[in-house]
Amino acid sequence: MNNEQQVLDNVDKLEVMLRSEDELDPGQAQELKTLATGLPIRDVIAIVERCNAVRAALVLRLLPRRKAIEVFDAMDFAQQADVIDELGNAEVFEYFDALEPEDRVALLDELPVEIADRLLRSLNKPDRDITGVVLGYEKGSVGRRMSPEVPTLHPEMTAAAALAQLKETAQDLETIYTLPIVEADRRLVGVVSFREVFQAPDTTPLGELMREAVFATATDDAEEVARWFLPLDFLALPIVDASGRLVGLLAWDDAMDIQEEADNEDTARAGGTNPLHQPYLSTPLMKLVKSRIVWLLVLAVSALLTVQVLAMFEEALAAAVVLSLFIPLLTGTGGNTGNQAATTVTRALAMGDVRDRDLWGVLWRELRIGMVLGAVLGTVGFILATLVYDVKIGTVIGTTLFLVCTMSASVGGLMPLVAKKVGADPAVFSNPFISTFCDATGLIIYFLIAKSVLGI
Amino acid sequence: MNNEQQVLDNVDKLEVMLRSEDELDPGQAQELKTLATGLPIRDVIAIVERCNAVRAALVLRLLPRRKAIEVFDAMDFAQQADVIDELGNAEVFEYFDALEPEDRVALLDELPVEIADRLLRSLNKPDRDITGVVLGYEKGSVGRRMSPEVPTLHPEMTAAAALAQLKETAQDLETIYTLPIVEADRRLVGVVSFREVFQAPDTTPLGELMREAVFATATDDAEEVARWFLPLDFLALPIVDASGRLVGLLAWDDAMDIQEEADNEDTARAGGTNPLHQPYLSTPLMKLVKSRIVWLLVLAVSALLTVQVLAMFEEALAAAVVLSLFIPLLTGTGGNTGNQAATTVTRALAMGDVRDRDLWGVLWRELRIGMVLGAVLGTVGFILATLVYDVKIGTVIGTTLFLVCTMSASVGGLMPLVAKKVGADPAVFSNPFISTFCDATGLIIYFLIAKSVLGI
Repeated sequence: MNNEQQVLDNVDKLEVMLRSEDELDPGQAQELKTLATGLPIRDVIAIVERCNAVRAALVLRLLPRRKAIEVFDAMDFAQQADVIDELGNAEVFEYFDALEPEDRVALLDELPVEIADRLLRSLNKPDRDITGVVLGYEKGSVGRRMSPEVPTLHPEMTAAAALAQLKETAQDLETIYTLPIVEADRRLVGVVSFREVFQAPDTTPLGELMREAVFATATDDAEEVARWFLPLDFLALPIVDASGRLVGLLAWDDAMDIQEEADNEDTARAGGTNPLHQPYLSTPLMKLVKSRIVWLLVLAVSALLTVQVLAMFEEALAAAVVLSLFIPLLTGTGGNTGNQAATTVTRALAMGDVRDRDLWGVLWRELRIGMVLGAVLGTVGFILATLVYDVKIGTVIGTTLFLVCTMSASVGGLMPLVAKKVGADPAVFSNPFISTFCDATGLIIYFLIAKSVLGI
Repeated sequence: MNNEQQVLDNVDKLEVMLRSEDELDPGQAQELKTLATGLPIRDVIAIVERCNAVRAALVLRLLPRRKAIEVFDAMDFAQQADVIDELGNAEVFEYFDALEPEDRVALLDELPVEIADRLLRSLNKPDRDITGVVLGYEKGSVGRRMSPEVPTLHPEMTAAAALAQLKETAQDLETIYTLPIVEADRRLVGVVSFREVFQAPDTTPLGELMREAVFATATDDAEEVARWFLPLDFLALPIVDASGRLVGLLAWDDAMDIQEEADNEDTARAGGTNPLHQPYLSTPLMKLVKSRIVWLLVLAVSALLTVQVLAMFEEALAAAVVLSLFIPLLTGTGGNTGNQAATTVTRALAMGDVRDRDLWGVLWRELRIGMVLGAVLGTVGFILATLVYDVKIGTVIGTTLFLVCTMSASVGGLMPLVAKKVGADPAVFSNPFISTFCDATGLIIYFLIAKSVLGI
C-alpha cells in the first residue's frame, strides 16, 4: 500500500518535471533519471505518451537501454517519428533494430523518405530482407501489418519433434502459440494451437492434431480482417499469398492496434475532425487546429444553404416573427435525431453488424423509428406550443417535429450506408453533415407548413 | 477460389432464409441445416449475430452440438439472453455449462433473477463454486470479468516440474501462456511467460525466470484496467485480492470485450442514444426507440432555452428580420466547434491520454485553438456578409463567429473533464448537450453584438 502511494507520488513528480515549460538543470536531469528508472514500465510509458518529442527523447536517453527500448516500442508510430527527429543516429538505429519487422514498417510509413531509407540501410541483411517482405505489401493491407517470421511445421511431424524445433527457434518468432502447418511448398494446410501440441502424446503427428485454418490473404484490407478476426479470440491469424502459401502471421496485438486506429479515426470523423494519430497532449497546437479547420470551413460553407433557405422565406418571417423563435429548437431536434441514427448505423457498420446490402432494411427500420419518435415529440410540441401561443402555432410545431424526426432518422440511417456504397468513409459523411442537411431540409418543411397553416 | 465463391453464395442463401419474415417449411429447415453445418464457423457466427432470437435459436438447434456451443459462446451476452428464452431447458443447461465461469456471470447479469438462479443450480458443485467466486465481485469490477481458474506455481519449482504440472492441468485452465507465481499463501510474487519456461534449462527454478508482476486488484474498475492493460500486449493479467493473494487472471480477450463494450457505450452516448449491447439488426425496433426517446426529449426540453433566449430578443428580430437568417449558421458553427473539442477530449480521456487533473491544461489549449479557428471563420464571415449585405452586418457576423468559436471550443473541451470530475460519464455530457448549450449562449452573444452594432 505504502509502496503504491510512493509510486503515485513519483509519477506525479516525474510528470510535473516533464510537462514544465522551463529548461531542466543538470540536478533535475539526475533526479529525473532516478525517478524514471525506478518506476514500473507501464507508468513510464503513460507519462512519455503525454509529453512532447524533446522531453520524450530526454527520458529515453536517461533510461537504462533495455527499458528505453521497451518504452520506445510502446509509443504510437507518429510519436516515434517525432522523437526520432530529436535523437542521434546511433540511438535511432538501435531502437529501430529492436522493433519487430511489421512495427518497423509502420514507423517507416510515418517518416520522410530520406530518413526511412537511412534507417533501412542501417539494418543487417537478414533483418532488411524480412522488413522488405512486409514493405512489399500496400499500405492498409494486412500484409503490411503481419509478422513474416513464422515457424515451418509439416503435418507428418510428430508433436515431440515440433516441440523440439520450436524450443530451438522460438527466439526468432513473434509467437509460438498459434502454429500454422504447411506442405513442403509452404501451402497452408491447417493450424494447431501450441497448447494442443504440448498436451498431445509425443508420437502424434501434427496432421492429426490440426484443424482447418481460418486465414486471410496478404492483400486483404487490414481493418476488415482485424474486425472479423479479433472476436474469434485467436492469438494469431495465418496470412497467405494469392496461391495459398503461408507468408506470415497477424498477431492479436497488431490486429488490436489496427482496430484501435480505425476506431480513433471513426470517432474523430464523427466529431468533424481529422484523426490525430497521436496522444492529445503531445500533439502540437497547430496540428490540432489543422485537424479541425478544414471541416469547420466546409461545414460553415454548407450551412450557407440554411441562410439561403431562410432568405426564401424572409417575407413569412417578417409577417410572423414568432416563427423565428423555434428555428434552433427545430433544427436542433432534427440534427439530434439524425445523429442518433447515423451514430448507431456507423458503429454497426464498423462492427460488421450491418453490411452494404442491408440498405433497404436499415431505411425501413429507421423510417419506422423516426415516425414513433416524431409522434412522441410532435405531440409534446403541439401541447406546449398550443398552451403558450395558440392552436395554430401548436399545429405548425407539432406537424413539423413529426416530419423532421421521420426525415432525419431515415437520412441519418441511410447516409453511412450510401457513403460506404460510393467508397467513402461512412464516418466522414456522418454527424455534422447530417446536421447541416437536416437543418436545411427541416427549415423548408417548417416554413411550408407554417405558410399553409397560418395563411401567410 | 471456386470454393471461396461457393462459401459466399451459401452465406447469402443462408442469410436470405434466416432474415425472411415467412415461416420456414420442413424442406427449408433441412436445407438450412446442410448450409449452416457446411459453412466455416466464423460465417455462421456473423449471420447468427444479425438475426432475431427465434431464428438464432433455430440455427443452434440444427447445428452439430459442438459447433452450436461455439456459436453460442461467440454471441453477445444480451443476444445469448434473448436466445435462452427460445430454447428448452436441457439445451440451455448444456450451453451454460460449456461457458467459461466469467462468461457465465456476464450472461447471468443479462437474465431475470429466477432464470439466472435456475441456471446456476443446474451446474455441478465445482463449477458452481468457481462461478460463485466471480459472482462475488461487484458489477463493473475486474473481479467480475476474470477467470478464477489459475495454475499454482511456486518460485522454487523447476522449469521441468512446472511444465509437467501444466501438461496435466492445462484443460482446466483458461490460459497457460501467462504464468503467475505464488508463495505458499497464494501471495503473488512474480510472473513468467510460458515461452520463457519452455525454453529454459530443465533445472532452472521459476524464481530465477520470473519478473516483477504487473497486476490489478479484483475490486478495480474493469474498464480502467482493460485500458491500461491492453496496450502492454500481455496475454493475461494476474488479479489479486486486497491482501495481494492471487484470485484470477484477466485474459486479453476478456479485456478486449470490456474495452469494446466501453467504446460502444461512448460512441452511443456521443450520438445521444443509450448503448444497445446487441447487434443493430437483431435489436427489436421498440428497444431502439427506447434507446433514443429519453435523450431526444431531454435535449428538446433543454432546447426550449433557445426559444426563451430568442423571445428575449423578439423586438430586435422584428426590427431587423435579416438577423434571423443567420441563426442556424451561427448555432451550427458553434455546435460543430464544440463537438470537435468534446469528441477529441472524450476520446483522449477514454484512452488515458488525458486525465482529470489536466483540466486547466486542456482549457488553455482549447481556448487558444478556439481563438485561431474563430479568427479564420470570423474573417471569412465578415468578408462574405459585408459583400452580400453591408459592413455592419459583416461586423456582427464576423465578431459573433470569433466569440462563438472561442467559447464553444473551450466549453466543448472542458465539459468531458467536468463530467468526469463530478462522477458522470464524460460521453453523456458531450456532443448533443454541448450543441444545445452553445446554441443558447451563442444566440445571446449574437443579439448583444447585433443590438450594439446596429443600434436597435
